[in-house]
Amino acid sequence: MNEFDIIAEIFAPLAHHPGAFGLKDDAAVLPARPGFDLVITTDQIAEGTDFFAFDPAASVAQKALRVNLSDLAAKGAVPEFYLLVLALPQSMDLAWLQDFAAGLAEDQKRFGVTLLGGDTASTEGPLSITVTAFGTVPEGKILKRGGATVGDAVYVTGYIGDSAGGLAIFKREKHALSEPQRDDLIAHYRLPEPPVDFGARLRDLASASVDVSDGLLADLGHIASAAHVGMTIDADTIPRSEALRAFWGDGIEAILRAATGGDDYQIAFTASPVREAEIIAAAQGVTVTRIGTVTAGEGVELRHKDQVVSVPKPGYRHF
Amino acid sequence: MNEFDIIAEIFAPLAHHPGAFGLKDDAAVLPARPGFDLVITTDQIAEGTDFFAFDPAASVAQKALRVNLSDLAAKGAVPEFYLLVLALPQSMDLAWLQDFAAGLAEDQKRFGVTLLGGDTASTEGPLSITVTAFGTVPEGKILKRGGATVGDAVYVTGYIGDSAGGLAIFKREKHALSEPQRDDLIAHYRLPEPPVDFGARLRDLASASVDVSDGLLADLGHIASAAHVGMTIDADTIPRSEALRAFWGDGIEAILRAATGGDDYQIAFTASPVREAEIIAAAQGVTVTRIGTVTAGEGVELRHKDQVVSVPKPGYRHF
Repeated sequence: MNEFDIIAEIFAPLAHHPGAFGLKDDAAVLPARPGFDLVITTDQIAEGTDFFAFDPAASVAQKALRVNLSDLAAKGAVPEFYLLVLALPQSMDLAWLQDFAAGLAEDQKRFGVTLLGGDTASTEGPLSITVTAFGTVPEGKILKRGGATVGDAVYVTGYIGDSAGGLAIFKREKHALSEPQRDDLIAHYRLPEPPVDFGARLRDLASASVDVSDGLLADLGHIASAAHVGMTIDADTIPRSEALRAFWGDGIEAILRAATGGDDYQIAFTASPVREAEIIAAAQGVTVTRIGTVTAGEGVELRHKDQVVSVPKPGYRHF
Repeated sequence: MNEFDIIAEIFAPLAHHPGAFGLKDDAAVLPARPGFDLVITTDQIAEGTDFFAFDPAASVAQKALRVNLSDLAAKGAVPEFYLLVLALPQSMDLAWLQDFAAGLAEDQKRFGVTLLGGDTASTEGPLSITVTAFGTVPEGKILKRGGATVGDAVYVTGYIGDSAGGLAIFKREKHALSEPQRDDLIAHYRLPEPPVDFGARLRDLASASVDVSDGLLADLGHIASAAHVGMTIDADTIPRSEALRAFWGDGIEAILRAATGGDDYQIAFTASPVREAEIIAAAQGVTVTRIGTVTAGEGVELRHKDQVVSVPKPGYRHF
C-alpha cells in the first residue's frame, strides 16, 4: 500500500466531518461557530520515549490522541476534532496500521471526536505520532493557568505516579507486586485516562487549571508562575494508588517520585474552597483530592510531616 | 537550555497572537470570526527526505512553514497562524535554534503569520518539523479540488521541476551548469516560493485548485479524480526554467522528470478560459501558464508532439 491507499482505506473512514473532505483535499475547513472559541493543542509522542515497540498499535494510537485530549480537558474544552501526522518506519505493515486505526475509531466514539486531516510520511528514525486536537469552549471561557488567587485550594484528579511506576517496571526496576498490580501500573503508562468530561464541568468552578503531564510539582509550578502566587502542597495528601504504594512504599522518596514522574494526564486545578461541594458534585465518578493551598509568594513548597521537602527536579524534561 | 527555556527564550517572541498566551499555557485559543471559515493543513518535513543536515537552519524553518502555506494558498486562504512541533536530536545547539527562529521571524513578517503554539521534544531519529497552518477564507469560499468542469483550461504557477533538479544535484547527478544556474536549482529545492498572495486572489477565478507538491501530474490527477473529469496536458507547455532546461534538456524525458518530481509548491488550477484575462491581471508578477484542458473521461493524459506519453510514476511517494 502506498500513502494514498493508506489514507483512503485506513484513515478516511475515521474522517466524519464534512470539512475533512474525506481526507481528499489539501486542507480541511471549519466553519466559524459564533459564541464559541476554538481551543487548540498539539503533542508528539515517539517510540522509545512515550511508548515502546512492543506496545499494541491500538493503545499507541489512543495514547497519542489522549495526551492531547488531556490538554483540552484541562482548559475546560469539549474535544471535537484532531489532525494526525504519522512518521512511519518502513517496518510498519498493514496489520499494524489497521490496529492503529481501530484504536482511534474506538476512542473517537468514546470521546466524541473525529479525524479532520493529517500527513503520512516514512522515516528512518523511530515511529512518531503528532496529534493536533481542537475543542470548543463558550466565548472567553477557556480555563487558564493564570487565574489562581491566594486562599484558593489546590486539587488534583485521579492518582498520581501510576504511569511513572509503569515505566519503571518496563525499565526492569525490581518489584514484588502481584500480576494485577503490575498490569495496573503498566496500563496507566501505556494508556492514560484523562478526565475529559470533567474538564468541561470544571470550567465554571476552577480558577486555574493545568494538565499534569510533566510531573505534578512541575505542572503546579506552571500555575504558580502564571498566576504570580505560591503554593503549599501536603505530600501525604497526594493521591497514590494501592498498586503504587505496594511498589514504592509510603515514604517521602516514594511520594516525590510519584509527584515528579510525569505522564499522569490528570488535571491539577485551583478553586475557591467555598466551591468544594460543587466540585465534588461535578466529579461524577472522577476522584478529586485536595492537596494544598495557594499562598502569597512564589513557587511550590512541598511539605511532609511539617517539614519542607527539597525538590531538586520537579518534573520530566526532554533535555 | 531545557525545553522550557527554549520555548520561553527562542519561540515565545514569535507568538504575537493573544490566544497563544505567550506559549505559557496548555493550549491556544482562537475566537470565532463570524463570516469566515478556518482552513487547516499540516505537513511534516524531515532531515534526509525534505532537507539535509548541511542546509541552513533558517531555510529549514522556512521550508517547514512554506510547504504548509502552499496548501493554504492553493485553497484560496489567507494564512494567519501556525503551530510548530519539533523533534530535535541531542546534537542541536542553541545557535542552530536561534538561526531557526530567525528564519521563522523573517517569514512571519513576509507572509503575515504568527506562531500560535507547539511542542518540543528530543528524538533519537533525524530532525523533524511538523507545522500546522491556519488560514481564513470568506464563509464557503474555500477552493477545492473537485470543482473542475469539462472545457476548463488547466494552469500552473511558476516553474515546474526546479526543486527536483536541485535535489538531483544534491544527490550528485552530473551536470555542466554554471554556478548561478546550479545555485538557482538548489535554492528552489531548499526554499520553496509558494505564490501565497495569488492564492487568495484566485479564490473567485478558479474552479478547482491543488498544491503542486507530489509532482505536477500526480497533483493534477487529484483534481481529475475529485472532479470526476479527465485532463489533457501539453508536455511542451509545462513551464521549466532556463537552468532546468540547461540541466536536463528539452526532450520528453526531461519534461517527465520535471512534471513528476515533486516539491514544487506551486499552484495548479482549472478555470473557465473566459476568465483568462482576469487571471492574468490577478497574477501580479506570478507567472501563470496554461498547460491543458479539462476533458470528459478520467485521468491525466500527457501529450507530446501529438503523441500520448505513458507516465509510469506520476509523482513522489513516501512508500
